[in-house]
Amino acid sequence: MSDLNIIKLFEAILDKSSIIVGDDLKSRFYHIWKTDIPLESMCLLLPKNTKQVSSILKICNDNQQEVIIHGGLTNLVGSTKSNKNQVVLSLEKMNSIIEIDKNGKTLTCESGAIIEDIINTAKDNNLLLPLNFGARGSAQIGGAVSTNAGGLRVFKYGMTRNLVLGLEVVLPDGTIISSLKKLMKDNSGYDLKQFFIGSEGTLGIVTKVVLRLYQNPKTRYTALAVTNDYQNVLSLLKFMEEKISKNLTAFELLWNDTYKQMVSDKTIYNKYLPDNYKYYVFIEYMGGDFTNDYNTFEKVVIESIDKGIAEDAVVGRDEKEQLNLWGIREDVAVLAEEKKFDQQFDISIPVALIGEVIDKTIEQLENCDGVKTIFPFGHVADGNIHFIIGKDSDDDNLKSKINDIIYTNTEAVEGSISAEHGIGIDKKQYLIKSRSKDEIELMKIIKKSIDPKNILNPGRVF
Amino acid sequence: MSDLNIIKLFEAILDKSSIIVGDDLKSRFYHIWKTDIPLESMCLLLPKNTKQVSSILKICNDNQQEVIIHGGLTNLVGSTKSNKNQVVLSLEKMNSIIEIDKNGKTLTCESGAIIEDIINTAKDNNLLLPLNFGARGSAQIGGAVSTNAGGLRVFKYGMTRNLVLGLEVVLPDGTIISSLKKLMKDNSGYDLKQFFIGSEGTLGIVTKVVLRLYQNPKTRYTALAVTNDYQNVLSLLKFMEEKISKNLTAFELLWNDTYKQMVSDKTIYNKYLPDNYKYYVFIEYMGGDFTNDYNTFEKVVIESIDKGIAEDAVVGRDEKEQLNLWGIREDVAVLAEEKKFDQQFDISIPVALIGEVIDKTIEQLENCDGVKTIFPFGHVADGNIHFIIGKDSDDDNLKSKINDIIYTNTEAVEGSISAEHGIGIDKKQYLIKSRSKDEIELMKIIKKSIDPKNILNPGRVF
Repeated sequence: MSDLNIIKLFEAILDKSSIIVGDDLKSRFYHIWKTDIPLESMCLLLPKNTKQVSSILKICNDNQQEVIIHGGLTNLVGSTKSNKNQVVLSLEKMNSIIEIDKNGKTLTCESGAIIEDIINTAKDNNLLLPLNFGARGSAQIGGAVSTNAGGLRVFKYGMTRNLVLGLEVVLPDGTIISSLKKLMKDNSGYDLKQFFIGSEGTLGIVTKVVLRLYQNPKTRYTALAVTNDYQNVLSLLKFMEEKISKNLTAFELLWNDTYKQMVSDKTIYNKYLPDNYKYYVFIEYMGGDFTNDYNTFEKVVIESIDKGIAEDAVVGRDEKEQLNLWGIREDVAVLAEEKKFDQQFDISIPVALIGEVIDKTIEQLENCDGVKTIFPFGHVADGNIHFIIGKDSDDDNLKSKINDIIYTNTEAVEGSISAEHGIGIDKKQYLIKSRSKDEIELMKIIKKSIDPKNILNPGRVF
Repeated sequence: MSDLNIIKLFEAILDKSSIIVGDDLKSRFYHIWKTDIPLESMCLLLPKNTKQVSSILKICNDNQQEVIIHGGLTNLVGSTKSNKNQVVLSLEKMNSIIEIDKNGKTLTCESGAIIEDIINTAKDNNLLLPLNFGARGSAQIGGAVSTNAGGLRVFKYGMTRNLVLGLEVVLPDGTIISSLKKLMKDNSGYDLKQFFIGSEGTLGIVTKVVLRLYQNPKTRYTALAVTNDYQNVLSLLKFMEEKISKNLTAFELLWNDTYKQMVSDKTIYNKYLPDNYKYYVFIEYMGGDFTNDYNTFEKVVIESIDKGIAEDAVVGRDEKEQLNLWGIREDVAVLAEEKKFDQQFDISIPVALIGEVIDKTIEQLENCDGVKTIFPFGHVADGNIHFIIGKDSDDDNLKSKINDIIYTNTEAVEGSISAEHGIGIDKKQYLIKSRSKDEIELMKIIKKSIDPKNILNPGRVF
């Protein structure tokens, strides 16, 4: 069917303002960091409810029309790229928070809801959505579900998967699968929501989500500790787990170059500790005792210095100091000077091996002509390290060389090439370094059974 | 192909002692509680490794031969029943614990490993496998994974799903899917293990498991608190979450009749509190401070009495007292006097509604001629309540009447007919009360894509 005829079918179910075509597409884009590149698409659709999503998919499936899904456009693996023959469906108008159940500690919302809005709504009700990452002000919950997003509190609360109690999903043929129960435990048949979480929109479009919330901790304190020895990073993690295990909610690591950049003139952040240490560890403590928590935490941090595990440390007390400390850890856009040429990595490796694997990787990268900056950082307690690598150019050979270095080192320790960002388009060719042929074959069998015409986010993952 | 010919094919890959046929089947059974009923099967196979499981399934798939999987035979939904035309495959010989990684806090084992053995191995290494339920001395980890088993610590640590980092699974056609990575985070493509967890052996046979372990808490204390008002059970939960949130590892409930039975002459358990209260709450505290934890916990328990939330309470201090208290909660076989005629339930309902729903259900059951005993108990903080209902006879009408009462009350509050036991054969006809037609249809599509000849655990779930 011609583009015009298909758009006519959409006009029968959506109002005019919900169908963006022609020149109007020029002010739209495929990624939040690429606002200079106009969106390529046959049309951009902005459905307002699940029924419209269902009708759109039915039309597309009947006409074997490819559909690319847009959420908050913060992904780092090219998932939201499209071409002019593809329909783009954005969930931005489906952003309501439908219900918060204070007794049951659940929140139900549409998939286009911004994660920061959900966090704030929970907070207003003295509850916590532990999902927390740098892009939370733009990222939508539907995208977080579809990519099984991680972030800063995985160590304590798990990935997005662990926070999802129910889902409503539209299948490629328009069937609405509604599993919106608010139950903690439900073993009545296959747990279908698990199939859609983390499958990057290739099996269905998430339209509503029931999230599990937690009691909001009354106190939150952050420490920054430094050492020159990775064994001491491990010892510090062990020490904190033993001393404040129940209250330890994040344990994050910056390498020297990354820290230096984050406290340089380019940022607003104060340098609380000198920039000549090899490792900078950010430790978050959450608790319920206004009177004693700060002292408890401070005492443990001081003990870690006395024992020679940390060489030095500071504990942020007030909100301002904590925002500063977390800014150093989270505001990673600062690390991407030339966003066009940057390469982003998101590897998972056994915690005990991180020190040596990253040392080796940095050394190899430093020997690559064209590599300007190497910024490693990450969720060390989860074994998840990110790299942002700045380059002079977009040279394909250099790109491959860098990918090969990092993914070969990852494969050598049975790691994963994607801990939390997903595969999308950009990492497809490296999937075989993390998963066997039989595993990838099984993924394809499942995709084919649910999306036999391959219309939904085609070309993603495998 | 005839039975004899198929068995010949098995003889080519298994030694003789691994193939049980004929009269030897008479000493085998399909359930741990039904040792008087000989196993019906063409043959029982006892493979010793994954390769043998793969070869068996390849033969069965090529010959469209149905296979029923046996683990620890503790399920409560008829999952392990078979007929004389079916091959039964038991994983009992594949019970090795392969590796414990103390640094990474993981344990890798074969799927036939007994859960209690895994718990003990972890404990010997100062680590905790939080999976804990009454049948742990017989149940195998493969069964727990395949049914996404729950238990006493779900509230704190999640279901089995949350404890699985990696799986090795054999597909119906014999393909071995090996995803045995020990990573906390891995978003490289579909998270295939999620498809097998909780699908009750209908999509593949789990052969190896990588489990996530936790730091072993140094202290464990248990309190029993009583009240006559369900609102106070809720208040007590809220109070404990506020006061000892990070250390609260279980919050379990017995109704009066259940408690009475558990401390009657039929058991060895001491009655620490009188048997005239309506609700008996079991509260578990785990912590890391030998010196102060008991006092901290006791103080909070006393405060709950002072505030009028609990009417009375005791705190078990030593191991003996705690074993006694948990015996009262866990030793539920005592509640099943005439196992043949019992009906077991495992429903999930919103926590706030449990009081009224169970009151109503008990009243309706009491009006059923033939119902002898009604024993409700369960994981109240998770919204998961079990019933064991004793009867005079095995009358089908009575059985249906009881099912209808319980499942209609469950459906009315958007609950689940199976919180943790699964669907198996026994609950199939009621699945529609928890899941929509479209959901069940999607389960069938997935089953067909992975097991097109329907040879693996056929007739289970849907």
